[in-house]
Amino acid sequence: MAQAPALHTVLGKAVAILRAFRPEDRAVPLAALVRRTGLHKATVHRLSEALVANRLLDRVDGGYRPSAGLFELGMLASPERSLLEVAMPFLQDLYERTHETVHLGVREGHDVVYVAKIGGHRQATAPSRTGGRMPLHCTAIGKALLAHADDALRRAVLTGPLERRTPHTVVAPGTLRRQLRRVTETGVAFEQEESALGLTCVAAPVLGHDDEPLAAISVAGPVGRFRPDRYATAVRAAALGLGSTLVRRDPPR
Amino acid sequence: MAQAPALHTVLGKAVAILRAFRPEDRAVPLAALVRRTGLHKATVHRLSEALVANRLLDRVDGGYRPSAGLFELGMLASPERSLLEVAMPFLQDLYERTHETVHLGVREGHDVVYVAKIGGHRQATAPSRTGGRMPLHCTAIGKALLAHADDALRRAVLTGPLERRTPHTVVAPGTLRRQLRRVTETGVAFEQEESALGLTCVAAPVLGHDDEPLAAISVAGPVGRFRPDRYATAVRAAALGLGSTLVRRDPPR
Repeated sequence: MAQAPALHTVLGKAVAILRAFRPEDRAVPLAALVRRTGLHKATVHRLSEALVANRLLDRVDGGYRPSAGLFELGMLASPERSLLEVAMPFLQDLYERTHETVHLGVREGHDVVYVAKIGGHRQATAPSRTGGRMPLHCTAIGKALLAHADDALRRAVLTGPLERRTPHTVVAPGTLRRQLRRVTETGVAFEQEESALGLTCVAAPVLGHDDEPLAAISVAGPVGRFRPDRYATAVRAAALGLGSTLVRRDPPR
Repeated sequence: MAQAPALHTVLGKAVAILRAFRPEDRAVPLAALVRRTGLHKATVHRLSEALVANRLLDRVDGGYRPSAGLFELGMLASPERSLLEVAMPFLQDLYERTHETVHLGVREGHDVVYVAKIGGHRQATAPSRTGGRMPLHCTAIGKALLAHADDALRRAVLTGPLERRTPHTVVAPGTLRRQLRRVTETGVAFEQEESALGLTCVAAPVLGHDDEPLAAISVAGPVGRFRPDRYATAVRAAALGLGSTLVRRDPPR
């Protein structure tokens, strides 16, 4: 993940403190924030208290944690939130048809950012989380987005290092390029334990004007019980429905 | 909504700029940010650019907008996100049983903050949104939380001004107090067009150790078609299920 680029400024340091929190944290002691940011203890203490005063952190037993105020601020991110609102009925329909884990993701840099993850009591254990990231090349959503990305981005990903997340991650650029070509032909992308062992997934791109990839939708489940090809039609239908709704709402300028 | 309390600091000003964005905004021009914050134009320009450099804003045609980086940061808010993850299967079940708009909310100050809003194609037009706020006293979720809040908080809300959102908002403290007593007796709270005309709602509190109100779940629908009392049992079952799961996960210290 990218680091705050301006650690010499007050704002950059404050953002670095916020980004030092991890999803699994409950309360993070001051000493841990000092260690994770590499900033001086006095600076971390002063800025953490200022973040509390500004309602972005809460002071709790054992340290600090991100506050409801930060959650609210994050939900002002209008592209993600308005996409989520329009997408929700399509995601719900897809969930009801499959009862498996449904994701909505967008591209940021060379990563997928998950805007929604919905699932029921029997959902598979997936490493994804709402607001979390995964590299494009090892997820079905990422491949769906990458297949429709512009040439420069696709080339940058294919020539960059392709991180191996599992023994099944496709790290050969030629193989990945062939898979992406197949995605544009068939309208769906697959992942077979490429981001996490035991998990398989099918995704379809949500396309806007001029086939610009706006997002992608996926259904994921455990290897064995879950057969991703059986859900290809349902995922494609959800992505097409969402795409045409987005295009109607937001006519080309 | 509370304002950033420290407008004399760089951090306070930067947070004020972020909070100046509204959910319906696409791109906000510099001049509008200046107007909304009351800060000097040069300050807003410098800090907006710094927020872009720190990946919290994007510079787009026509101004600035909150970025995916801000969305990610908001999703680090661990209490909200981990609550959401545990709650999702219960919310999904409730949605499938009702096919109406399902909310999950927590208390912040005298407000409800919505952590999730899920609904299908036929969902009612509700003013709620994920990450949005409503006063406690005029929503079913708020009354469910308030009925189980400690005495000091309940007294503060009941003696404070009770904002009238619609002609149906309960603004008489005595009436509201009787409604809250009924919530503790029956386990469900109702709203009849008290936050928005045309909308009715039923909610149940999610209780932790010692009946501490952790969150509340609601089902909302349009007046006429939707009969909230018919869903009372389903909402209560979802809230009880979520509460006992949260208590099991997080044993008392």
